[in-house]
Amino acid sequence: MKPRGGQRLLRQVQSVLEQRCPETRLLCSQTPGSRGFASAIPQEAFDEPPQNHKEGKVLHPDLLNENFRNAEYAVRGELYLKGQELVKAGRDIIFTNVGNPQQLGQKPLTFNRQVQALVSAPYLIDHPQAKGLFPADAVARAKTMLKYFPGGVGAYSDSRGSAGVRQEVADNITRRDGYPASPDNVFLTDGASVAVRYMLNAIIRDNRDGIMVPIPQYPLYSASIQLYGGRLLGYQLDEDAGWGMGIPELRRTVRDARANGLAARAIVFINPGNPTGQCLSYDNLRELIKFAHEEKLVLMADEVYQENIYQDKLPFVSARKVMMDLGEPYSKEVELCSFHTVSKGSLGECGLRGGYVETTNLHPGTIEEIYKIASINLSPNIMGQVAMSLMVNPPKEGDESYPQYKEERASTIASLRRRAHTMTDAFNACEGITCNFTEGAMYSFPRLHLPQKAIEAARQAGKPADTFYCLELLEETGILTVPGTGFGQREGSFHLRTTILPPEDQMPVLVDRFQTFHKKFMDKYR
Amino acid sequence: MKPRGGQRLLRQVQSVLEQRCPETRLLCSQTPGSRGFASAIPQEAFDEPPQNHKEGKVLHPDLLNENFRNAEYAVRGELYLKGQELVKAGRDIIFTNVGNPQQLGQKPLTFNRQVQALVSAPYLIDHPQAKGLFPADAVARAKTMLKYFPGGVGAYSDSRGSAGVRQEVADNITRRDGYPASPDNVFLTDGASVAVRYMLNAIIRDNRDGIMVPIPQYPLYSASIQLYGGRLLGYQLDEDAGWGMGIPELRRTVRDARANGLAARAIVFINPGNPTGQCLSYDNLRELIKFAHEEKLVLMADEVYQENIYQDKLPFVSARKVMMDLGEPYSKEVELCSFHTVSKGSLGECGLRGGYVETTNLHPGTIEEIYKIASINLSPNIMGQVAMSLMVNPPKEGDESYPQYKEERASTIASLRRRAHTMTDAFNACEGITCNFTEGAMYSFPRLHLPQKAIEAARQAGKPADTFYCLELLEETGILTVPGTGFGQREGSFHLRTTILPPEDQMPVLVDRFQTFHKKFMDKYR
Repeated sequence: MKPRGGQRLLRQVQSVLEQRCPETRLLCSQTPGSRGFASAIPQEAFDEPPQNHKEGKVLHPDLLNENFRNAEYAVRGELYLKGQELVKAGRDIIFTNVGNPQQLGQKPLTFNRQVQALVSAPYLIDHPQAKGLFPADAVARAKTMLKYFPGGVGAYSDSRGSAGVRQEVADNITRRDGYPASPDNVFLTDGASVAVRYMLNAIIRDNRDGIMVPIPQYPLYSASIQLYGGRLLGYQLDEDAGWGMGIPELRRTVRDARANGLAARAIVFINPGNPTGQCLSYDNLRELIKFAHEEKLVLMADEVYQENIYQDKLPFVSARKVMMDLGEPYSKEVELCSFHTVSKGSLGECGLRGGYVETTNLHPGTIEEIYKIASINLSPNIMGQVAMSLMVNPPKEGDESYPQYKEERASTIASLRRRAHTMTDAFNACEGITCNFTEGAMYSFPRLHLPQKAIEAARQAGKPADTFYCLELLEETGILTVPGTGFGQREGSFHLRTTILPPEDQMPVLVDRFQTFHKKFMDKYR
Repeated sequence: MKPRGGQRLLRQVQSVLEQRCPETRLLCSQTPGSRGFASAIPQEAFDEPPQNHKEGKVLHPDLLNENFRNAEYAVRGELYLKGQELVKAGRDIIFTNVGNPQQLGQKPLTFNRQVQALVSAPYLIDHPQAKGLFPADAVARAKTMLKYFPGGVGAYSDSRGSAGVRQEVADNITRRDGYPASPDNVFLTDGASVAVRYMLNAIIRDNRDGIMVPIPQYPLYSASIQLYGGRLLGYQLDEDAGWGMGIPELRRTVRDARANGLAARAIVFINPGNPTGQCLSYDNLRELIKFAHEEKLVLMADEVYQENIYQDKLPFVSARKVMMDLGEPYSKEVELCSFHTVSKGSLGECGLRGGYVETTNLHPGTIEEIYKIASINLSPNIMGQVAMSLMVNPPKEGDESYPQYKEERASTIASLRRRAHTMTDAFNACEGITCNFTEGAMYSFPRLHLPQKAIEAARQAGKPADTFYCLELLEETGILTVPGTGFGQREGSFHLRTTILPPEDQMPVLVDRFQTFHKKFMDKYR
């Protein structure tokens, strides 16, 4: 095996330490390709074994894996736990902390659930009595599904997911972008989060590897980067420009990272944005792709809200399409990972946990490594894979179920569109709140211009001002939101995130309750 | 914050390096409670940024996270990939590499699938036309499930899983062991593997932390320990004593680890055994618990095969029950994590991905940390949780579905019991094969006493002798097994693992095919 950069570096470290610190024992990884990080431990330390228990517990919280302990996940953090407490105490809480549409009343697509029922109980498929209960196309689709899954929904599939469903995903991407996609580049996963985490785990080698992440960001990224021991390199979205992504800010982030001895390895972007709700323009995506190419960054395209679009100026366009449109060298060289899910859009099937990553220009050896890691968990769940098949290959014009499917889908998206307006308008009608319009996704992320006295009261309570605000909001109104702190925000600015998911008929009451609270809060701390 | 052992150690390292290697820059973690590992990098190294691409790829296989690259998972390794190739080429392959019962024809329990269908398409519940299709108790259960899951199966649940299902799990454990269990100590997960990995991730701090694992072992453990950067401390099971677990061997393992500066943090055991099929006796479990207490080890009880028992001498007994029977100090002090799944036993619902970990004597702060990490992934899938509810709370005597449930369950287990005998007998009838009886679980793990010439031929082919054997077996017969190498085995001994899952009516043909192959193989290399 020929020497590599990492081994050279390792030898340098060894030689420095051996010559000058002979009493220092060097623990180092001998694996080929190692980055050459090594742990220098004084000989004496070996007389003191690692601390293995505290107060009688091996698994004392202080003795857990450091990254495990330090990872934070705000969406189910302090506010959520407080909300759970209130629920136990009998309070009526509106959970707008998580994009969980069906919990707030979004109806599943009828066709999809018919197929899910039939694959769950295949004896219904040819049951004479079940004839009128299921349309013919649902029965046909269930039969196809049972071909895709030998052994049915109770058997493990391949660890990448069923070949049949992966083909459907690839076909759907091909139709969407106008450029052919391959099932060999698709991994089905238990929700998109799992796919994101495979990629981050593969990319991050140690705490000198950085992942560029928008600020504000979805905390899946901050939590996972921490868990895998890497560095989050935050780039600021520009709130005053509708949460736009500026290339100079991206450049600054890379430059600062390099100056600190860090490697920027990948850039995450979320389009439509979470928590910001912005949609990226075609031109912005072009710039982003050129930037990723120039800086040799893996492009992680979180496009899980691609169906959730609430304006016509910026329709969804995938990073993959823009990259292919750009042509070479970009189309052949930029390493792209695109994520999608059944949890959002018109399905909103969060509980079924179906997602995928589709990769472009990845090294085949890397695909194999991801496959191997996926195989440790044996198989993504089958019902999530069935849901994915139904999402990417829905009823078509002429099918028995098409009219109902079309109507249900359109009405869900139209209702979300109305709610996006209602929510944003409600915030902007408040004194001291400014809120960019929710162009897409499922969230509003208003900025709270809080009075100095409120900031001071929060400080006294030992809490960030937005957490303080959200806690009061929760206790007064039962509305559970997430403070901006959990997503990241410019120093000195305060926000909250709410979903736009409460049902339309409840919206007026909620808006009123919120505005009343806000007015009271502002008056209290004026 | 008061100084901790880790910080003291860190200061020692810093002082050694600062005094004697002033040109060495120390990268170290400042986090409280740190174990004080630090990376010593010569100053020059900072002029050379981390290698960020190779052959034009950021995600070059050589540049991935080292633990990610080095993890191996034999159950879906070389043999499986070869098998997949053969399937593509049109060959008929029998997959006995994974315990995937429904893929090989095990029927799901009818009642369970009726409930799953009803919760998937709740409009069926009160549909007049569906009356005769579902028994009343299935309808009632589906209604309960929809109460457990507000928003239905398409909404995220709590990240620990539904409170209702966790209560049912706790009640089931209480009935099984005769000691009360609490839902607060139960985490529902996407299969037991995810639960095992939460625990390993929490326990392993760095590469001085060791996890004791039986050899042979289920490679989930070796792969995950590698992935989380810990050390596998293998303890040998005694093949000549029916794969028994000997306490002196456990002691040796801890002693050796300590002599190497490692901390043994936890001990995994698998009962009934995978791949070995052995059942642990009550007395053996008593000894094990006392040992874990004495050595301050977290006890990780992989009890996923607790329903798969094929003899009467050693019925399943949980580690938790034995520990409670022992009384104090064990019942109050040993930190125990018990794993279970819907994938095995009479359900065999691998594809639904339902599992749990139930913990005893864990620090409440540690439970909180696990909850937090689970929350990054938002929610275990709901269909897996429904399956778990149905497993731990099946139809009862007097219920409409009870007779059918009872019959289906009994006939599955009885058939597996017959197959355990058939399989073991078939192996023992071969020249040069010895095989302990499959007392439980789903596997036979015969020892192959291979001729010297075969071992030599394998060496020439650059493969371990058992891999060589299994590859020939696959190509000749289409039977896909896993070589012993993937599980670990005593130096110089060779094994293979096969499931006992092929349908009974196919068994004679399979046995004949295997025996013919084996005779030919032995003759070829005699």
